[in-house]
Amino acid sequence: MSSDVESAVGVNAASREILDRLEAICGAKHVIADVPGMEGFLREPRDRFHGKALCVVQPGSTREIAELLKFCQETATSVVPQGGNTGLVGGQVPLGSGDQIVLSLGRMSALREIDLSSNTMTVDAGMILSRVQEEAARVGRLFPLSLAAEGSCTIGGNLATNAGGTNVLAYGNARDLVLGLEAVLADGRILSDLSKLKKNNTGYDLKNLFIGSEGTLGIITAAVLKLYPRPRAIETAFIGLASPRAALALLDLARDMAGGEITTFELIPRIGLDFVLLHFDAREVLSSKHPWYVLLELSSQSRQGLAARLLALLEAANEKHIIENAAVAASLDQRENFWKLRELLPDAQRHEGGSIKHDVSVPITDIPAFLEEAARAVTSAMPGARLVAFGHLGDGNIHCNVSQPIGADTQAFLDRWDEINAIVHGLVVARKGSISAEHGIGQLKRDLLPKVKDKVAMEVMRAIKQTLDPKNILNPGKVL
Amino acid sequence: MSSDVESAVGVNAASREILDRLEAICGAKHVIADVPGMEGFLREPRDRFHGKALCVVQPGSTREIAELLKFCQETATSVVPQGGNTGLVGGQVPLGSGDQIVLSLGRMSALREIDLSSNTMTVDAGMILSRVQEEAARVGRLFPLSLAAEGSCTIGGNLATNAGGTNVLAYGNARDLVLGLEAVLADGRILSDLSKLKKNNTGYDLKNLFIGSEGTLGIITAAVLKLYPRPRAIETAFIGLASPRAALALLDLARDMAGGEITTFELIPRIGLDFVLLHFDAREVLSSKHPWYVLLELSSQSRQGLAARLLALLEAANEKHIIENAAVAASLDQRENFWKLRELLPDAQRHEGGSIKHDVSVPITDIPAFLEEAARAVTSAMPGARLVAFGHLGDGNIHCNVSQPIGADTQAFLDRWDEINAIVHGLVVARKGSISAEHGIGQLKRDLLPKVKDKVAMEVMRAIKQTLDPKNILNPGKVL
Repeated sequence: MSSDVESAVGVNAASREILDRLEAICGAKHVIADVPGMEGFLREPRDRFHGKALCVVQPGSTREIAELLKFCQETATSVVPQGGNTGLVGGQVPLGSGDQIVLSLGRMSALREIDLSSNTMTVDAGMILSRVQEEAARVGRLFPLSLAAEGSCTIGGNLATNAGGTNVLAYGNARDLVLGLEAVLADGRILSDLSKLKKNNTGYDLKNLFIGSEGTLGIITAAVLKLYPRPRAIETAFIGLASPRAALALLDLARDMAGGEITTFELIPRIGLDFVLLHFDAREVLSSKHPWYVLLELSSQSRQGLAARLLALLEAANEKHIIENAAVAASLDQRENFWKLRELLPDAQRHEGGSIKHDVSVPITDIPAFLEEAARAVTSAMPGARLVAFGHLGDGNIHCNVSQPIGADTQAFLDRWDEINAIVHGLVVARKGSISAEHGIGQLKRDLLPKVKDKVAMEVMRAIKQTLDPKNILNPGKVL
Repeated sequence: MSSDVESAVGVNAASREILDRLEAICGAKHVIADVPGMEGFLREPRDRFHGKALCVVQPGSTREIAELLKFCQETATSVVPQGGNTGLVGGQVPLGSGDQIVLSLGRMSALREIDLSSNTMTVDAGMILSRVQEEAARVGRLFPLSLAAEGSCTIGGNLATNAGGTNVLAYGNARDLVLGLEAVLADGRILSDLSKLKKNNTGYDLKNLFIGSEGTLGIITAAVLKLYPRPRAIETAFIGLASPRAALALLDLARDMAGGEITTFELIPRIGLDFVLLHFDAREVLSSKHPWYVLLELSSQSRQGLAARLLALLEAANEKHIIENAAVAASLDQRENFWKLRELLPDAQRHEGGSIKHDVSVPITDIPAFLEEAARAVTSAMPGARLVAFGHLGDGNIHCNVSQPIGADTQAFLDRWDEINAIVHGLVVARKGSISAEHGIGQLKRDLLPKVKDKVAMEVMRAIKQTLDPKNILNPGKVL
């Protein structure tokens, strides 16, 4: 036997041992080791990341995960936690070495408890986000986290990545919606803090350390989520205006006049609207065309007066020449159409060839100047490139995507991904912005992170990782 | 020379060297080493903790603090950070050994920047909380953190302890009001994350690790704070009801009818009201007497309809027999009187002899049962003891204080502090509550913490402390 073959046999024998042990912990039918069975866990929706794995395990309880990790720690086997496999930065996809285990939380989807007076819901990490929303709605409450992948992403994945979405303006990021957490550490210890308390100053905030750590510090297995009253009145406007600067003036005015009632403030460029109208069954809202649009929604517990307040806001904005035109949804059907124009924006870009993505945030004040700079810099580097900048203006978070020039070669365009990224991220960093506002770091931005992050912050992150996962078995190669 | 004297001389020579170096860093007039000069920094308002120090230093910049800590790390000199010296658990008071340095942030009180579009304010850690509020008000904004000590506590201390107060229900704890942070680590490295971003998923959440760590992981030197619109309408009611159970029903109804407009929901027991009326110049509000009261406030950006909504809520509560009587403040003067009845509660207890304090929270659902149990258990252990349970019902946080029996010996009563604590905390822990909802751990609850906290959480806290402060120079003996 050549030494190559020997070593291959060695690996296989070791692998068989690992598989046997995993099967003993989770049950044989919850360990998938055949290539076709694993395939769906090894590549992600955008098909940018594709990995290999020794197997996919689907444990049924926190206790099983604890046993699994204890074993993995002993054998220095690395583990990639995975929820709904919808992440956009490759955090949930194993690397290419083939010796990692994908730990899918999919079987752990139980509703543990709802407490209406405390306004809390305790769920297992594998519950699909849309089911979390539905369970809250069934008891007359709102769980406000809402994002494009909500039909398949899991709450555990949302917390591991501190997901954002369209309701952040009013309700905060995923981390703001959590009271308590249960997580399994790298060595199998279970950190149990399923607290329903809004106020609890007994030591360090470990909860927020695990939330947003992308499975590199521990595996989140359950959480106590905050529930909110469902709004009784919602008023939606689709507004045409001249520029992001005008949109910012509208935001300031809206905050002043409607404050906490603003639940949506999304920026849409005309080019994005054109893409949606061209490729999907959606209707133009305003009779006039405008360079930019804002989707604005106000929500209230009280049925009275909200429509009047929205109209007063639009009238004031009109008088101050902040807006050019506006329509208020007069029916649920109209509201759905308004939202479609926003929600189909990412999909619509697919039909226009390659799209180089940026999920960035800058201080809100800086958005207009940043967007002007970005458009200039990108088209100067690549004449004909089409900036499609849209998203959560109220949070300072713009998906600053670049569609390829009409008729350009898609692959040649995508080959310039890093170059275009560097241009946009350079502008972001100059304005003390973030190169990942809501999608996280994963594999995609791992090498970029040390270039933009405070040096000491990087050192502290590495020290904490080393402390909590000294053998580097939890999602290695992600974030750090 | 006896060896005692030798060692005393040795300490003094070493101390002189340390003082010289501190003076070189901060300037001689900012190093206080005489006993009378230090006195105000060594004991706290309730006079429960009294320590000794080598000196008090008052650095003037983050750079100076970095140099100080680098030196302290080299010489293994421990440092006690101090803001306004208003903490209630002894976290800011040095231990009794006399070799610690008190690092007062008082000189670092600059307003670094206000950004109105981003709704942020960047301040040095030593700014007094009431000045933070005033600076926000000057530009037409609200900084909502509000608590009894606001005239002398500093924002840095508020963040180090994750302070709570009367606005938590609507705006969250201190940690929820922060976007960015600057902190100096134990070895003098400066972690600089003065971000204005609402969304930033680039790595671990270090900010929340430092907030609430009571100066044991780093010294917070500056922060970016969130500003809010000032409410245009405020409506205040003083409500009489039969029980905490009724108060909880009122909270549920208020949430349902007024949702995000509830900014205050404070529980007041009749006995507390009696104390205030007896010892201060304040007026009874309702013509009838009730076992319990709620101070309820609604706030809105819109001037229209808020009074009507409050009335509708009170009428609905009356129809459902949830409340017994209520008054709505018709003038600013009346509103002030309502608030006085709440704010003077802690002071009023001083006039009734000894008071054994509990700053606890339990899941909101459990508050009525918990309060019944606590009253029973305390009076059974100590007949005649008077439970004065008041506070932030909407947050599940009750200051469950016990005033001494009438005519009892105060010192004999206070000698039973730990015993009464153990009774109340036992009930809290049985309901998965917190033994420190908002005041922190400090020295007061340090030895209690391991008895009530999840074992793994304690281990992780210790591991993080060891990683970030291996020589244990940052506020040793506090929290852990």
